Parts: sequence; structure tokens; C-alpha cells
Amino acid sequence: MMRPLPSGRQGNPHYGNQSQPAPQMTFCRWLINMGYLQKLIAFTLAIMVVMPLVAHYYLGVAEMSGEERYEGDTRLSNMIGMAPTELRLHIAELYDIRQSVQKELRQLEENRKKVQEQLQSYTDQLLSVQGDLQQSRSELDRARTQIEQSMKEQTEVVERSLRHISAPLQILPQLKNDHPLEAPPSSAFCRQHNCFDYSRCSIVSPFRVYIYEPESVMPIHSDAITLRDEVTGALKRTTYTTSDPSKACIFLVLLWDSTEDDFDEDDLEGRLHSLEYWRGDGRNHLVVSVSKDRVSRNILGNVNTGRAMLAQSFYTSQQFRNGFDIVLPPIFPVLRTAWKGGKFGPSYTPARRKYIISFQGSREEHEPNHQGAGGNGDHILSRKLKWFEARRTTTQKDLDVESTILNEFYKLKKFSEDEFLLDFQCGDGFCDGNGVGWCLCGNSEQRTSVLGESTFALILATDLEFVSTVTFLQRLSEALQSGAIPVIMGGDVALPFGDFIHWNEAVIILPAGRVTELYYLLKTIQDNDLLSFRRQGAILWETYFSNPEAILSSVLATVRTRISVPANPIMEAGSRDLFPPGSVRRTEKVTKMTPESDDVFPPAEPPFSSPTFLRNFTSTYVDHHRSWNNPPGPFHLFPQNPLDPVMPSDAQFGGSSLGFRPIANGIGGSGKEYQESLGGNIPREQFTIVILTYQREAVLVSSVERLLGLPFLNKVIIVWNSPQPPSDDLIWPEIHVPVKVLQGGKNSLNNRFLPFDEIETEAVLSIDDDAHLRHDEMLFGFRVWRENRDRIVGFPGRYHAWDVDNNGGFLYNANYSCELSMVLTGAAYLHKYYFYQYTYYMPQEIRDKVDEFMNCEDIAMNFLVSHISRKPPVKVTSRWTFRCPGCPQSLSMDDSHFRERHICIQYFAKIFGYTPLLYTQYRVDSVLFKTRLPKEKQKCFKFI
Amino acid sequence: MMRPLPSGRQGNPHYGNQSQPAPQMTFCRWLINMGYLQKLIAFTLAIMVVMPLVAHYYLGVAEMSGEERYEGDTRLSNMIGMAPTELRLHIAELYDIRQSVQKELRQLEENRKKVQEQLQSYTDQLLSVQGDLQQSRSELDRARTQIEQSMKEQTEVVERSLRHISAPLQILPQLKNDHPLEAPPSSAFCRQHNCFDYSRCSIVSPFRVYIYEPESVMPIHSDAITLRDEVTGALKRTTYTTSDPSKACIFLVLLWDSTEDDFDEDDLEGRLHSLEYWRGDGRNHLVVSVSKDRVSRNILGNVNTGRAMLAQSFYTSQQFRNGFDIVLPPIFPVLRTAWKGGKFGPSYTPARRKYIISFQGSREEHEPNHQGAGGNGDHILSRKLKWFEARRTTTQKDLDVESTILNEFYKLKKFSEDEFLLDFQCGDGFCDGNGVGWCLCGNSEQRTSVLGESTFALILATDLEFVSTVTFLQRLSEALQSGAIPVIMGGDVALPFGDFIHWNEAVIILPAGRVTELYYLLKTIQDNDLLSFRRQGAILWETYFSNPEAILSSVLATVRTRISVPANPIMEAGSRDLFPPGSVRRTEKVTKMTPESDDVFPPAEPPFSSPTFLRNFTSTYVDHHRSWNNPPGPFHLFPQNPLDPVMPSDAQFGGSSLGFRPIANGIGGSGKEYQESLGGNIPREQFTIVILTYQREAVLVSSVERLLGLPFLNKVIIVWNSPQPPSDDLIWPEIHVPVKVLQGGKNSLNNRFLPFDEIETEAVLSIDDDAHLRHDEMLFGFRVWRENRDRIVGFPGRYHAWDVDNNGGFLYNANYSCELSMVLTGAAYLHKYYFYQYTYYMPQEIRDKVDEFMNCEDIAMNFLVSHISRKPPVKVTSRWTFRCPGCPQSLSMDDSHFRERHICIQYFAKIFGYTPLLYTQYRVDSVLFKTRLPKEKQKCFKFI
Repeated sequence: MMRPLPSGRQGNPHYGNQSQPAPQMTFCRWLINMGYLQKLIAFTLAIMVVMPLVAHYYLGVAEMSGEERYEGDTRLSNMIGMAPTELRLHIAELYDIRQSVQKELRQLEENRKKVQEQLQSYTDQLLSVQGDLQQSRSELDRARTQIEQSMKEQTEVVERSLRHISAPLQILPQLKNDHPLEAPPSSAFCRQHNCFDYSRCSIVSPFRVYIYEPESVMPIHSDAITLRDEVTGALKRTTYTTSDPSKACIFLVLLWDSTEDDFDEDDLEGRLHSLEYWRGDGRNHLVVSVSKDRVSRNILGNVNTGRAMLAQSFYTSQQFRNGFDIVLPPIFPVLRTAWKGGKFGPSYTPARRKYIISFQGSREEHEPNHQGAGGNGDHILSRKLKWFEARRTTTQKDLDVESTILNEFYKLKKFSEDEFLLDFQCGDGFCDGNGVGWCLCGNSEQRTSVLGESTFALILATDLEFVSTVTFLQRLSEALQSGAIPVIMGGDVALPFGDFIHWNEAVIILPAGRVTELYYLLKTIQDNDLLSFRRQGAILWETYFSNPEAILSSVLATVRTRISVPANPIMEAGSRDLFPPGSVRRTEKVTKMTPESDDVFPPAEPPFSSPTFLRNFTSTYVDHHRSWNNPPGPFHLFPQNPLDPVMPSDAQFGGSSLGFRPIANGIGGSGKEYQESLGGNIPREQFTIVILTYQREAVLVSSVERLLGLPFLNKVIIVWNSPQPPSDDLIWPEIHVPVKVLQGGKNSLNNRFLPFDEIETEAVLSIDDDAHLRHDEMLFGFRVWRENRDRIVGFPGRYHAWDVDNNGGFLYNANYSCELSMVLTGAAYLHKYYFYQYTYYMPQEIRDKVDEFMNCEDIAMNFLVSHISRKPPVKVTSRWTFRCPGCPQSLSMDDSHFRERHICIQYFAKIFGYTPLLYTQYRVDSVLFKTRLPKEKQKCFKFI
Repeated sequence: MMRPLPSGRQGNPHYGNQSQPAPQMTFCRWLINMGYLQKLIAFTLAIMVVMPLVAHYYLGVAEMSGEERYEGDTRLSNMIGMAPTELRLHIAELYDIRQSVQKELRQLEENRKKVQEQLQSYTDQLLSVQGDLQQSRSELDRARTQIEQSMKEQTEVVERSLRHISAPLQILPQLKNDHPLEAPPSSAFCRQHNCFDYSRCSIVSPFRVYIYEPESVMPIHSDAITLRDEVTGALKRTTYTTSDPSKACIFLVLLWDSTEDDFDEDDLEGRLHSLEYWRGDGRNHLVVSVSKDRVSRNILGNVNTGRAMLAQSFYTSQQFRNGFDIVLPPIFPVLRTAWKGGKFGPSYTPARRKYIISFQGSREEHEPNHQGAGGNGDHILSRKLKWFEARRTTTQKDLDVESTILNEFYKLKKFSEDEFLLDFQCGDGFCDGNGVGWCLCGNSEQRTSVLGESTFALILATDLEFVSTVTFLQRLSEALQSGAIPVIMGGDVALPFGDFIHWNEAVIILPAGRVTELYYLLKTIQDNDLLSFRRQGAILWETYFSNPEAILSSVLATVRTRISVPANPIMEAGSRDLFPPGSVRRTEKVTKMTPESDDVFPPAEPPFSSPTFLRNFTSTYVDHHRSWNNPPGPFHLFPQNPLDPVMPSDAQFGGSSLGFRPIANGIGGSGKEYQESLGGNIPREQFTIVILTYQREAVLVSSVERLLGLPFLNKVIIVWNSPQPPSDDLIWPEIHVPVKVLQGGKNSLNNRFLPFDEIETEAVLSIDDDAHLRHDEMLFGFRVWRENRDRIVGFPGRYHAWDVDNNGGFLYNANYSCELSMVLTGAAYLHKYYFYQYTYYMPQEIRDKVDEFMNCEDIAMNFLVSHISRKPPVKVTSRWTFRCPGCPQSLSMDDSHFRERHICIQYFAKIFGYTPLLYTQYRVDSVLFKTRLPKEKQKCFKFI
């Protein structure tokens, strides 16, 4: 390729200009073939050769004097061999020609310029017209979409109004229907369908409970005053109580068991029956018999309780009416022992503890005739009871189930490689019990410390006569609390709130005959199941056993769920509006915003709220399996739930189109069509932006301004965390949606997650005041969240890393990583549901720690959501940070910030009992991100 | 910067060389400051100026003749004003100096060259050493990882061996413990804990049922021969039956009800008690009483059945022993009517049908004394019964619940805007029933056609005396089958298999008193809940009612689940190995593969299988809520389940590290650390690649070769779909894992999803023989699948688009789109669990259609997985196609291919009753994809 060059460079100067045209054909072909840079070089070199020659000529000329030039002229004319006169003429002629040509050229040049100018002006006009056209078209498009949306909205409003249910209203029980029902011959036959009067409990009116004075039936024993106050206080806190008996669905009677010998059953019966609203049969009465210690008697054993339901801890198998009575976990030990060992429960790990199984207890002598064995004086049941007693005598003769079990355990202890802690006789002789079944050795601290080292806790329930006793329940409660998985061996047991709790997820119940298989069985249970059992047990304990309020709420919730009446709605956080209606706020309408992406988004629809309380009946009736067996329990009715059922996609096109915005009416598509409609499996909705701010007004204002025109935005809520009100000269930006400024109370990062009544959508985008998200990012995040409503969906990922050096738990880690387990709530979508959970359900200690450090609220939220959902968060797009570059440095930059976050992770894990965070190894982009597309296709978003 | 240049260009030629040194300081600074290209340009221009001058000089010299040159020399010397001799000497001296300088220069040049050469050689050596070092280091790394992995593996093998359980083995019931137990005084008191003999049913031995000869107790009525054959045939197909009574846990007795008047109860009792294995009390006997039509009697009403469990359709409330007896859906109508209306069930949509609620029936006269009302001759129960009868008389006097209900309904019908179909008296007088409760109007077709137009189906169960009757169950079954949501009004009902089925998810049960609220209640139920009820009802009907085998399997499954004995393991598909061990296959070891990405993956670990059957007990005991209430039902034990519980991340570091490979030992990280370990929330595992191939050997071979070195690969299974065996001269590639070639039987695309026993991992990567996936893509897909084990995780996305023009259902769409609902199984990860479901659970009609079209197997799998999981698939990375570019065109390109796929979508939707596909609007990338990283960080993958 470079072949011609050397010849050019070394070209013999004598040949002068001839060096260029000589190898014409080859050179041209070569010129055409060579690249741009090569052309440049060749050109330069060519010039380097030609220039000297040209220069030489002129320099030569310049060196001559005036005459010499003339001589040169002569020399030239001589060379042509022409006469001088002739030559002069010729030259003059040439001059003329030159002049005329020059003139012509000048004219041409002028014409050319004119034409060019005209052309330019036409082009300009065309461009401007095209621009206008484009704008008009897109405006037309937006208008069309807006019209369509409005029309849909209108029909939806009409349709919705036909079906909408709001939070339950008070509807009085129909007293006129209150005629006496024939009672069953014995309360033993009472069940929900024949003893409960539904007419007092409308399905659409709130569940209300009238509580008799605590001393209305029995005087209180002097040493049970605290218990009484705790119980009545707890009942009031459930928010179900009413002082108006005419509004009540349930009438609650409190009984305090007595250990006195002069206890008179007839007297008790008389007092019960003369209760003001007893109405002859005690319909809709719930008799709650609270044991004040383990040495308690079955005081109702021989009392005719009519149609009343019972809630107590002690039941004989004949006494207990399944689906009607309630097994009450003992309340007194909770008062005495709960939270005594510090706020931390046992750690879930290791899955397998020191002892594979433990038991400590002594067999108490059984006195069947002293302990009233139920029957309400009914002869049928007495007869049955006799059979059971006879049976007991028989079995003690030829098959003592218990001793078989014990023998098996002794064998196991001897021959197996695992460590057993089995004391069937309390060491120091002290045994806590009520004379029935197996009493408890030692004190509560000693027992829970042993249980804390046991994988399983054996609970013997071999007394066929009793389905539940106080000591049995106490054993169960202590095991759950200590993370020892209860193994109940025996026949017929009734567990607390067993109507709706799936006890099989937390407790292993085996018939006595399986004792031979027990060891093998326990050994085959894998670590993941062990930890599931333990976690479920801890959740059940926390929800249903941990304090008097939990226990009594569960009693009421059982009755309420049986009759399918919804719970009370969860409390919204009231909000103190810093600019209530009527107050003056200096505002300025934001009119123009530079879009940060080229995407064309649909026009913002007017704000509309997510519908609330659509599933009052179904969430109570259908979802009780979920609500009773998962945190936070069945105690509250939520406006919406992240796991509400989704419709199949045909429904959108077959009669259930309400609110749906299928993409291109169901044809689907990319780019424009996608942007125009929400699509997905869920009807249209909007989101609320919650901005937590603290004394950075300029930053805040620009953050709000940037939201102008953001589609699907419902409202902006600014949580004003500063005790100082906004400065008077602050000019608030006015955008297309309301901007509310709410005072969060004290300066607390927990305010970020307050479930304000002002939040009227399910989706909440929580952002820091200095967070900078583009519109396309927010819109895509919203769409992703709609598919993952029970997870945190956000932008900056973080993770918990094992502290390998200290082996002491997890550390917070903000490095770029391929695995993440947290998404910062400074830029994340969350379901409002979790705001309630954060504020009301999550232990107070966590919120306190957040306040102490002024840090970690995002870690706490990630713990909570992963704990409830058992899913990792979802990271969206490639963003790893979210601060705006020009904003003043936030407090999160200093070292102590990170140290605190390490501490938080380890502290929260102790409170939860485990680290609920889960890892995820991917992040989420729009479907066509970085995809090579055919020309006619548009991407979903330009940049993400 | 360019300032000096113009002066250089215009520089006066007379000053010659002086133009360069003149602005020396500025120029040098400028030289230093300017960039490379600028330097080049400046240099060129400088040359362009200097060259002419230099050239001019030499050209001038050349133009002179030899003398002239001398003259010039003279001219020069004159200019200096020197004597010629002196000058000559001076020149000679200069010549000498010049020569010596030239020599020196030459030497220097030689030295320079030498040094340069040496330097070059050193550099080369250094580079090569560095390369070696790098390679050694990475080899060392790989070796280290391998050693670590091996060590972990070893400890794991040891640990695992201590705990592993395999599929249950036959362990004989302990006959020596078979001593007689005292029976309860009446069978009415029988429950699981006091009447069932667990010793015959070990928790680790398979559940086995011995079936008595169908005529061993009662002669068969001549018109029930078909029923008998169907029932016995169905029982055998359940795979639980055994002919060896010593292995049996349960003894099943079949009874056929009789309408003959000469039926003798004493005779029946005698025959029962003399059954060969009755052992005096009928322990572990299950008496299945099959009704041959609706006109059936409660034949066991007055028979002492000892400890035997009953399964029948007709129960009085005293007779039914909750948790012990089983409510049997009627079998005879299934035989007569099922599948008669074609294979399609009702469509789920629209959610709201023509009639809001319908009922058709007549009240039959009640004959309490004729219909044996249970009690086993027990006086206690007779007494109770009398009370119920007395009660009935009373209520009929002053509160006829039924007439209240009917009156309410008449009111509703009159005043509400919705359409009701309520016939409380059959129009044509014909009524099908058994003399108890409400008989059924018309024939089955008429009824289901009305039900098919009803949103809800009213079922009256106001007879407190009966918890279940044949007509009641028939009503329930027909409603479920027709997609009408059953609303049972009444008190006390027992529903089929109610121990484990959550009937509240499919049926609304309300007490009679709520009739006033009914209309409002039904109106408030939202479309999503309606469709959930309907879907759940359809699933329950399909699983538990739809055919005699389903019904009888459910009876056995109820008993089995009660005693926590695992189901029989699901059948693996046997595989005919085309190259069984010992056969000859021409192979060639693949030694080198050009990696398609720069990522450094860890060395492939030796193949290891996923552990199987780890959760036999827990999946039976803990998961029964899930298994009974979701497809495919509780009938099989699976080796693994996609939803097996996940451990919290602390467990990995606190005693449960078995199999875990945390990233960088828990520190986490990106790039290298990430690639070295699997991480995540689940222990290490591998995947199997299943390639379906049909007569494209070259394509296949290159596909397999490309898998060399792919980490986490366990095995390659080639499903040989061609009837011709592989050609003899085919050379099979040998890679680092076994490559099995299995014959799929007939040429069927369904073979792709056969659950071959050769598949030994949970994860299966299904790929077409011409699919081309890079290693990084496969590895990332595997990691994503590990977090989404119940979903299809793959590469090419597709979706179902509404046929807007014809409004006739969904069409298949392969366009680039921002919303997708299917992922093609030509390149997708799936849990092996779904292979069982595809092959055994999915309706045969779907597999038939796949065979008919030789198409749509991927659509079918997407339908199935979305139906079971109610989740959309997960699309991974930006790939939209997966064919290799050079491969021969596959059949999927022609038009008919697409037409068939449209048909498939609509046909499958009819079979499923709805379109289970769900939309998703995102796809998944590795966390740091397209993320700007600090220099020291590596991405997770280079390209994805």
C-alpha cells in the first residue's frame, strides 16, 4: 500500500511536477483503497514533495531583480519562439478574457449565495413546521389518552359506587328478633350452630364486647388483684369493648379460680344465671376463667353454664366442646416471668442444640373425684366418665402406656449417641403443679435455661382424661418461648386457639404408640424444618402467649373469626398538617421542567385513591389460615393487603375490566404502547411519595419541583421532621398533585414510616429529601413493585456480610456486590401495609434504637419486610446510589454511621431471634433494556 | 495553543532557519503542552515551511555546474573574508572533524541498537514470566477452590450419611405388640387416639391397604355391578393396595347399600364381625359404604361397627365422628355424568353470571323413624336423638327456620335488581332424592346448565339432624363442577375430606340466621375473590370429586395423613438408554473449547445429585395445608418440592453450614468472589441439561461440545426423539460430565418433560438441540432459578395477547414486547417437580394436542407452572432468541406454526377453565450489569 510513497519522497527533483501524474491509474486505485488517515499522510507527503518544487520556482523568481524578471519573461517568450509584438497582443487579449471570466464568476457567486440563502430559509421553515406538527401530534395523543382514561374512570366511578363497601359501620343488633331459642338439653351439646345467637352480631357491624364488672360473679382473692387489673386493662386495650350492652355481640364474664375450701358451686351457678344479660341461657356469653396459679381447680366442672362459651386452661375430654370452647394459655406466669430475662428471645441458631430432647417433671398422683371432671351434672356424661375411669384402671393393669414410653426413653438415653435430658423425677423434690399430670421441676428461669439448650421439648399428655391442663399449657408456652420444639406425646389434646392456628407447623404431636419411632423421626428432621418449626413457634408465642393483651385478644379473635365478623380496622396515624386548609402558604406554580429522559410518558391522570376495605368479609372468612398463622396475627383489618388475590388475565376482557389498563387494549407492545398503559395483572393505581426532610429547604424544594408531571403520582407527603416550622419566606412549589406538609411529632427517623391517613394509595415511594430519581426510574420501579407488592422494591442495594474475623454476626456492607439483601428506603417502593407493621407490630425496642442512633430505620424496615414475607427485596436498574450530586453532604458519610449500622444489624437480629434478611443475586431491568431491536420497535424506556 | 503556527506558516523565507529558534521558550512550552495529534500537525507544517527552504538551497546548488559550485564556494569564502589557503586547511580540518564525528555517531548508533535489543529481550522475558505467573496464580486459585470444595464435600458426605433418609422401605407392622386394647363402651366415642392401632402403621414404612373381596360382606345388587368394578378397579390403581394382610395398615371393607326391604341389620353386623382380620373390634378397618343412587339408606345406622372407621355419604349429626369418619362424595353420579358434557369445564369468566344465586329443589317429607338415625343401638344416643326430634317439633311450631329463610329469599327476589333463580318446588314435579332434605329437580344436565349460569349456588342444610346426605353432597359436587360458588346455609354440616381441605376457600358456609345479610354479603364480594372461590372449587372438584379413583384416593389419603404416614413416592419415568453400560459408543474427548466470554468460572465440581426424600415426615405432617389445598393434591410424595423451606442466613454460619457456599465465606463480593461460590439462601446444587433432539446429529454434537467445563453441570441427557437410532459413524463428544442418550419412546415433544430417573437434580435446564446459550448465560440463569424454584426461568420471552378483533380469546405473540407471560422451554430452567406434574397430573387432552400439532409443549408447560404457582415466569438477560445463527432453520418458522400456537392457547384455556398465564413487565440481569464501577471492582459477569 505504501509502495508509491518512497519514490515520491526520494523523487528526483529534476523531474519536478512529473512525479505526480506518472503512475496515474495505480495511484488512483490506491487512493480509493486507502483509509482516511492514510490519505491524510499521503497528502501531506505529497505536499512535502511538491511544495519545495513550487517554492523553489517562486524563490528563484523572487531572487531576481525587476529586470531579471523581465529577462525571465523574455526568456519565456524565447522559449515559445514568438514575436514580441504578437506576444503583447496575445497577452492583452488574455487579460481581457481573464477580466470577463472574473466578472462572470463574481455574478455566479452572487447568484449562488442568493439561492443558498433562500434554501436555508425554506429549510428553517420546514423544520419549525415539523416541530409544531410533532408537538401537536403528541399533544393530541396525550389528550386522546386523557379522554380515554377519563371515560374509563367515569364508568368505573359509576360501577364502583354500586359495589363499594367502606369500613364497617355500627349497626345495632336486631333486638326484636331476640326471642328465646330452645336450649339443648345439656350444655355439653352446645356448638356454634345451636347455641350462638347470630342476630346480635351483624357481619357488617363492628364486633363489640360488653364486659361485666370483674367482681360481678365472684369476689376477687386478695392475692389476685394485680392479675385482675392486668386482665381488665388488657381487655380494654383490645378496642373491642363497649359499655353499651345493647351494642354488644358478646358478653364477657370474668371468673377467678379459687383454692378455698368453702367454694360453693351452686352459689357460682346462681350468680352466673342472675347476670343482667344472661337471658335464661347465657347466650353469647363468654365465661373466661382465669387461673391465678398452677394450683387451680376446674371450678366450672359441675356448673351449668347454659349456652355460654368457656375460655379456660383446664379441660377434661368430656368437658371440652371443640369449636365452641377456647383453651386459654395461662395468664399468671406471663405476668410473673415475661420479659424478665431481658428483651431478647432465644437465638434460632444453631438448629440443633446440646440436648436433642429434654423433659423435667414428676408424675403427680391423680385424684379423679376431687378434681371435678366436667359434665355439668349431666348423667350421660357421668356415665361416660365412669367408663373412662374404669378404662384407666384396666390400662394401668395390663398396659401402662406411660411406663412403656418411659422405658423407651430410658433405652434411648442409654444407647443413642445424642444427649438426652430426661428427668422423670424432679431432682430437688420441688415440683410446681396442680395435682394433675406432670408437674414442672424447678423455677421458670431454670426450666427455660434447660429448654434453651434443647432442640425438642418433650411434653407428655398421656392422661386421656384431660385434653388440657395448666401445667401442660405452661410446658408448651415455655418450650415455644425458649425455641425448643414441643413434641407432644399422647392422645387427645386441645391446644390454645386451635380453631385457626395450624399447630402442626410449630408442634409435633404424636400418638403414644409412636414412641419407638420417635428418636429416628426426630433425627430425620432436617435443619431447615427445625428452624421453620422454631420460627413458627416463636411467632405463635409472640402473637398469642406473650402478654395478657395478646392472650385476651386471641380469645376475642377466636369468637370473632368463628362468626366471620371482621376485625377492627387498623389505626391510621393522624397527621398534623403544617398548612391546614385555610392557612396561607407561599406557593409558586412550577410550569416547566427539563425532562431527564427522552421517554414520552402519558399525561398524569387526576389523583385517585386506592380503594379500601374491599375484602372485609373475605379477608376474615377466606384468609384466616394466612392471617392466624403469619405475623402480625388476626387482630386487625387492613384497608388492603399485599397478598390480596389476583384475577386471571381473561377476567379483564370478560366482564371484570374495572380499573384495568391492558397495554394497547390487550394487544401488548413495546415503547409507546407500554408507556401509555399500566398493564399487568392488577387494576390501575397510583402511588404516594413520602419525603422525610430535616432543615434542608432548598434541597427539598428542588426535589419537589422535579416531580412535576410525573404520571401515576397521587400525592406528595413531606414529613417535616424539624421542630422548627418551615421558614416564612419559603416558596413552596406547586405541582400537578397536592403537596402535604405533615409534622412528624418529635424528630425521628421512624416518622418516615408512619401510616398517615393522608397516604391514600397502597404504593408508597419513600425517598430522602436529597434523593434524585429520574421520572423513568420512578415509573419503572412502580411497575415492578406492582408485581412484588409484598417486597421492598428500590434502587440502592446493600447486604449483610458475615463478620468472618469475629464470627460474631453480620455486618452492614455498602460495597458494590453481586449479592444483596437490603434495599435502602431512601429510594424504595413499599406497601402501606408495612407502615402499619413498622409502627404498631414491630417491637418498640427497634424503634427506640433507631431514635437512639438517628440511623438504621431502613435496616429495620428491611428486617421487618423479610421477616413477614420471607423474601428478599427487589433491586431495580443499575443505580447503586441515589443522592443528588450537588446536594450538601448528608450525615451518612461519616464512620460512626457505619459502625452504628453494624450494631443495628446485630441488635435487631437478637430481637427477631434470627436475621430475617435473605440474599438475592439479581436485579431487575425493563424487558428490552440493552436489547438489539428491529428499527420499527421502541424500547420500554430509553435509559433503563 | 495554535498561535505560533500562522507565523510559522507565513514566516518570511528570507529569515530561513531562524524562524525556528526564535521564540524558543514559548515554543517548547507549547510543544510540551500540546497533544499528540497536534504535535504531528505542527511538525508537518514546520516541515512544510522548512523543506522548501532547504530544497531551494540544494536545488540551487544542483542547478549550478561543477564550476559554479566552486564559484559558490568561493562566494561563500569571500563572504567570510578568508585567505584561500587558510581556508583549505580549515576545510580539511573540518572534514576530519566531520569524519571523526560521523564515526563516533556510527558507534553510538550501534551501541544504541544493542542496548535497545537487550531491553527488548528483557521486556519480552518479563512479559512471558508475568503471563506464566498469572496463569499459575489462577490455576492455584482454582486448585485451592477445588480443594476447599472437596474438603467441604467430604465432611458433608460424612454428615449427610448420618442423617439421610431414602424413600420409605417396607417395615412390617410389629405384630408382637398386637395385644387387644380395651374398646370404648360405644363406637360413638371412637376417635383416632383411642380406636386406631398405630402399631400396624410405621411412620417410615409405606402405607398399605388390604381390600376384602367386594362381596365378602354383602351380595352385590344386580344393577350395581359396574359400580363395583369401577370402585375395585379404582382402589387398585391407587397403588396402596396389598394382597398381604400382614403388611396392611388399613383393612378396607366395601359395602353396597340396599333398597330392598328384606335388608337385615343384624345379619350385616354378624358378617362384619366375622371378617377375617376383624379381631373382635374391627381396629384399623375402614368400612366404605358406597351409595348406588340417591335413594339410599343409612344401612350402618343401627350396626355396631366397633373400632372401624366409616366412609359414607349419609351421616346424622350423632353418627358422624369428626376426625375419625370420612364424608364420601357420591361415586355413582360420577360414573353416570362425568365427562358427558365434553372435556371442557365451565369457564371461570365472567366473574358474575346471569343469576346471582340459584336453587332448584323440593322439600321432601321427613321420616325420622324410617331412616335409621345412628346411635349403634346405644341408649345414650337414642335419648339424645329424642331430644333432637323434640326440638324439631318445637321449632316447627314457633320458628320455622326454613320458612324464615324462604321468606327472606322471596323478598329478595322481589325487591333486588339482580336476577335470582329460586325454585323451592320443582316445576315438573320430578324430584331426585332419598326422602331426606331437599331433592334435586330435573336431570343432571339441566341442573348443571342452570348452575353454569349462576354466580352462587344455594345449598340449604337446615336439617340439624343430618350433617351430610347424598343429595346435599350431590348439590355441592354439581355446583363446584359448574363453577357456581356453593353457599351453604344452615348449621352443622360435614364436608368431604374436611380434616384437611380448607373448604372456606371454595364454599361460603353461613348460619341460617344470616339470611337477612346474605344478599348484601354476596354483593360485596369482589370479582377477584369470586374468581378465587371458583378456581379453588374447580381444583377441589377435580382433585377430590371428579372420578372414582380421585374419591377413593382421597379416602385413603385422609387416613394416611391423619397418621402422618408419607404418600407413595411419585413414579419416575423409566429410561431406555440407547448406550447402556457395556455397549459401544464411538466417542472423542473434547479437550479445548473457545470460551465465549472472558469470565473466569470456577472449575467444575464432580457431579453430585440433589438429595432426595429429605422431608418425608415433615412434608406429610407440616405441609398438609399446602398439599391438600393446591394442585396436584396430597396423593404423592415428591423427592423434592420447589417450596421446601429456606433457612435463615445465620444458620449457614451457626451450625447448619452443610452444603452452603457463601460468597467469599460470607464476606460477599463481586466478580471473582461471586463466581467462585454459589451463595444464595440454598445449599450448593447442580443442574441437568435435557436436550430434545430429532435427526440433527451435527447440530447436537456441537451443542454438547460447547458444554465442556460448564460448572454446576451434573449430567447431559439427550432425549432421542427419532425412531431411528443414532448413526453408527456418529462420534459422540465426551465432556466432563456423563452424557446419556435416552430413547423417548414415540416421537413426541412431551418427551422433553418426562421425569426420567436419570435426572438426579432439582434444576433442569431444558434446551433445544439448536439452542445456543453461552456459559455465562447458563450460569446466571441457574442462579436466578435457585431463587425462583417454583417458576420457569429462561431466556426468550413470549406473551398472550388479547384477540381484540375477534374478542375470542388470547393469541400467541412472539414480538418484542415490554410485557411477557411465557418463557420458551427451548432455553429455560425448570424444577423437576413440574416434569412429574406435566406427565402425570396435567390432563391427557393437553398432551394429546401437543402430539397432534407436534407443537405447543412449551405453552402447555407455561400454563401448568402458572396454574400451580400463580406466578409469571422469569425472563433472564437481554436475549430474545436462542437459536444458533448457523443452524439449519427449525420448523418453528412457518406460518402454520403460529396458527397452531394460537389454537393451543385457546384450547388449553378451555381445559384449565381459565388462562393461568400471568404478565410480568421486567426481566432480570446480574446486579452490576451496565453499572459504572470503581476500578478495583469487577462486574458479576462481563456481558450479562
